[in-house]
Amino acid sequence: MNSELPKAVVLLSGGLDSATTLAMALGEGFACHALSFDYGQRHLFELQAAGKVARAMGVGEHRIVRIDLSAGGGFGRSALTDRIAVPKDRPDSGGIPVTYVPARNTIFLAIALGYAEVVGAFDLFIGVNAVDYSGYPDCRGEFIRAFEKLANLATAAGAEGRGVFRVHTPLLEMSKAQIIRKGLELGVDYSLTHSCYDPDPEGLACGHCDSCRLRRAGFAAAGAPDPLPYRKT
Amino acid sequence: MNSELPKAVVLLSGGLDSATTLAMALGEGFACHALSFDYGQRHLFELQAAGKVARAMGVGEHRIVRIDLSAGGGFGRSALTDRIAVPKDRPDSGGIPVTYVPARNTIFLAIALGYAEVVGAFDLFIGVNAVDYSGYPDCRGEFIRAFEKLANLATAAGAEGRGVFRVHTPLLEMSKAQIIRKGLELGVDYSLTHSCYDPDPEGLACGHCDSCRLRRAGFAAAGAPDPLPYRKT
Repeated sequence: MNSELPKAVVLLSGGLDSATTLAMALGEGFACHALSFDYGQRHLFELQAAGKVARAMGVGEHRIVRIDLSAGGGFGRSALTDRIAVPKDRPDSGGIPVTYVPARNTIFLAIALGYAEVVGAFDLFIGVNAVDYSGYPDCRGEFIRAFEKLANLATAAGAEGRGVFRVHTPLLEMSKAQIIRKGLELGVDYSLTHSCYDPDPEGLACGHCDSCRLRRAGFAAAGAPDPLPYRKT
Repeated sequence: MNSELPKAVVLLSGGLDSATTLAMALGEGFACHALSFDYGQRHLFELQAAGKVARAMGVGEHRIVRIDLSAGGGFGRSALTDRIAVPKDRPDSGGIPVTYVPARNTIFLAIALGYAEVVGAFDLFIGVNAVDYSGYPDCRGEFIRAFEKLANLATAAGAEGRGVFRVHTPLLEMSKAQIIRKGLELGVDYSLTHSCYDPDPEGLACGHCDSCRLRRAGFAAAGAPDPLPYRKT
């Protein structure tokens, strides 16, 4: 990692969006520290994918922080962490889906902020976007701006004026197809990414959960083949 | 726990301030869920104290969330989590002390927010105060207000208007002596609490770190005996 470059902390889930966000942060000239969470999600394929993506992109440091946000850990009650059925082929209702994990992005950004302060970064990247929003309150620009304000009050680095924390959301206004086109342009290897909420025991994507549906429609609209295999059901 | 009462989540460290905060939350008529963190702090006496305080006060639920904020976990670089000497008998410099853990209260409040959303609470209590501030940026009222704003944007409960999150800081403007007098009035058993940054292997408080000094001066100013034994050095 070039020590002359400004540092950034990039939240990396292992999915298509965060891989693209990482590529964009690197493209903007940041020396990137990637941060992933083992938060009690039902499957760990996305963490494996995060590791592959981080290695393939030559990230300087990739940290995985363990924090149990499942119901077992006293938290979740979400289809991502608990034994609740993942909805399939559901119409867009506009409501908050059962895959919502309470305060997840607030918790992730708070930890990213602490990590940033430790490594001397003032730039955080998170791959939230309007399509992914699909009912998640903590994927909106309004939420991000409020967090940015908080970050500068919350830290020694901010309080002492050593720098100004910024939360970058380069995907916020992009469609899935635009994200995919941008990633392909930057050389993202999407075969390394994992997006499915409900993979089979071998990690094969289901093709029908909200996340798979958005991904497949995105590749179709981008006119590019999705390199991921899907299970046949 | 009376299910008719409004619920609150109270951050409980096991120290004097958070025990008093819990007593005040109970006194205001909230059914309290206590939340503590095993965050890689050098000693676990404060977690044991938190358990004793929660039991003594008849809290409905006491959760301990594990999250490694030490340097080993990729975080800290604080005298509370790492092998850095805890400063003793230091003059009040106004600077940010080495016991500062980057973004700690942001992380704790973020997790408390997720927990609150799960249990259906809209009220969070945290025992920050102007004396404890002693250089910590995340103990200021300005920080708390920014977090409160964030909380209502970050959550499904807030976004859907099911309630308004409030972060209560009843100690914010109180001196240590006032806090102790208030706690004694409410029946807090301060012999159960633990405040020292640098206890000996048996858990005896040092009497000289910032936290012990504030505590001892507080009891002296309140005209009450501190029920804690201190080690003789």
